[in-house]
Amino acid sequence: MTWKATVLTLFPEMFPGPLGLSLAGKALAEGVWQLDAIDIRDFAHDKHRSVDDTPAGGGAGMVMRADIAAAAIDAAKAAAPAGTPAIYLSPRGTPLTQAGVEVLAHGPGVILLCGRFEGLDQRVLDAREIEEVSIGDYVLSGGDLAAHVVMDACVRLLPGVVGNAGTHDEESFASGLLEYPHYTRPREWEGHAIPDVLLSGDHEKIAAWRREQAEALTKKRRPDLWDWRRKAKS
Amino acid sequence: MTWKATVLTLFPEMFPGPLGLSLAGKALAEGVWQLDAIDIRDFAHDKHRSVDDTPAGGGAGMVMRADIAAAAIDAAKAAAPAGTPAIYLSPRGTPLTQAGVEVLAHGPGVILLCGRFEGLDQRVLDAREIEEVSIGDYVLSGGDLAAHVVMDACVRLLPGVVGNAGTHDEESFASGLLEYPHYTRPREWEGHAIPDVLLSGDHEKIAAWRREQAEALTKKRRPDLWDWRRKAKS
Repeated sequence: MTWKATVLTLFPEMFPGPLGLSLAGKALAEGVWQLDAIDIRDFAHDKHRSVDDTPAGGGAGMVMRADIAAAAIDAAKAAAPAGTPAIYLSPRGTPLTQAGVEVLAHGPGVILLCGRFEGLDQRVLDAREIEEVSIGDYVLSGGDLAAHVVMDACVRLLPGVVGNAGTHDEESFASGLLEYPHYTRPREWEGHAIPDVLLSGDHEKIAAWRREQAEALTKKRRPDLWDWRRKAKS
Repeated sequence: MTWKATVLTLFPEMFPGPLGLSLAGKALAEGVWQLDAIDIRDFAHDKHRSVDDTPAGGGAGMVMRADIAAAAIDAAKAAAPAGTPAIYLSPRGTPLTQAGVEVLAHGPGVILLCGRFEGLDQRVLDAREIEEVSIGDYVLSGGDLAAHVVMDACVRLLPGVVGNAGTHDEESFASGLLEYPHYTRPREWEGHAIPDVLLSGDHEKIAAWRREQAEALTKKRRPDLWDWRRKAKS
């Protein structure tokens, strides 16, 4: 079965967008994965196709209605492979990690609900077992770009999308470390040389040096990751 | 002076992409900000316009050359307002936060270098004072989507882009908390009612309830954020 992404959005014309121009787009054209972008407004009840209303209790912005979001989610679930998880993209969500991406990429696909406005009526999140996921600790104008990010991260892990399987083994997070630094030709650039060890041809020494570099960078830049790694090992 | 984003990319046709369809696109058309997407291949030296080479020391993937990336960065800096920070988007980078977005949005703009392949020659990062920034702990097929994310997060904070200034005061991270839950009409949906307090008309009680909800959610879902907040207060 083909991995299937269903996106519920107010901007269906945003998809596949940039995804269509890179590796993911080639894979989409080859049928490695499927993409269905559904307009949430198709589930509105009035001729203005409105999907939001003012927040109960007052405040700025508008809130997406539970009944309309639920109808969209139910339609998406009915058309998606059984067991497809539904995610609402929101800065309130559980942070997306590479481990989470791998779980999604190994499953049947994903349903991505993209909000706009202030938020989504909490009742639909509770009643429909929708997981709130955040791509990072910042606020976007809506969930659509976050949906692109989730799909790109997943699709590149699908079999056949990235040519060389070895590519994934040494990248950031693969072993709980940030990646070591890279160098390529020219050997000397503006007076800066490629580190000697990388030109030594001694594969064992090169591997050890890269490991040290990755550990030092992780310790310095991401003490949080380093700490998790230490805990996991002890 | 207009806030200016300069994107260095191998896929200039990806920009503005989805950004062009939302609030950011309207603001771009109105001249609230400027976007310049530059093709890194324009700085290549050969007729194949190649920008990458094999990694020194061996390994999978290809590495973007220091000389070509530096030429692209130098051209972008020359055309950008003085003091514009240059960012390389990479999972090895410092995590992007809403505080960082606010710093960028209040500055003259940003230069965003988008990688593909395995990475970028480390020497250019060191020699050109380029900050490595990560939008989250996952791996994308390239930096282009991350550049969209950075621009969307910044542009919505520019004066005049989001209508109601009050919108930003209560959103996630504004006070180191995740946002409280939202509700809107219908008052009853599938047997689930809007919490009574929100319909009470008592603004003080509503504010207190929302605060409690935001604190409880942050404590439960993001003990890391809660911890930072506790430390900052003590």
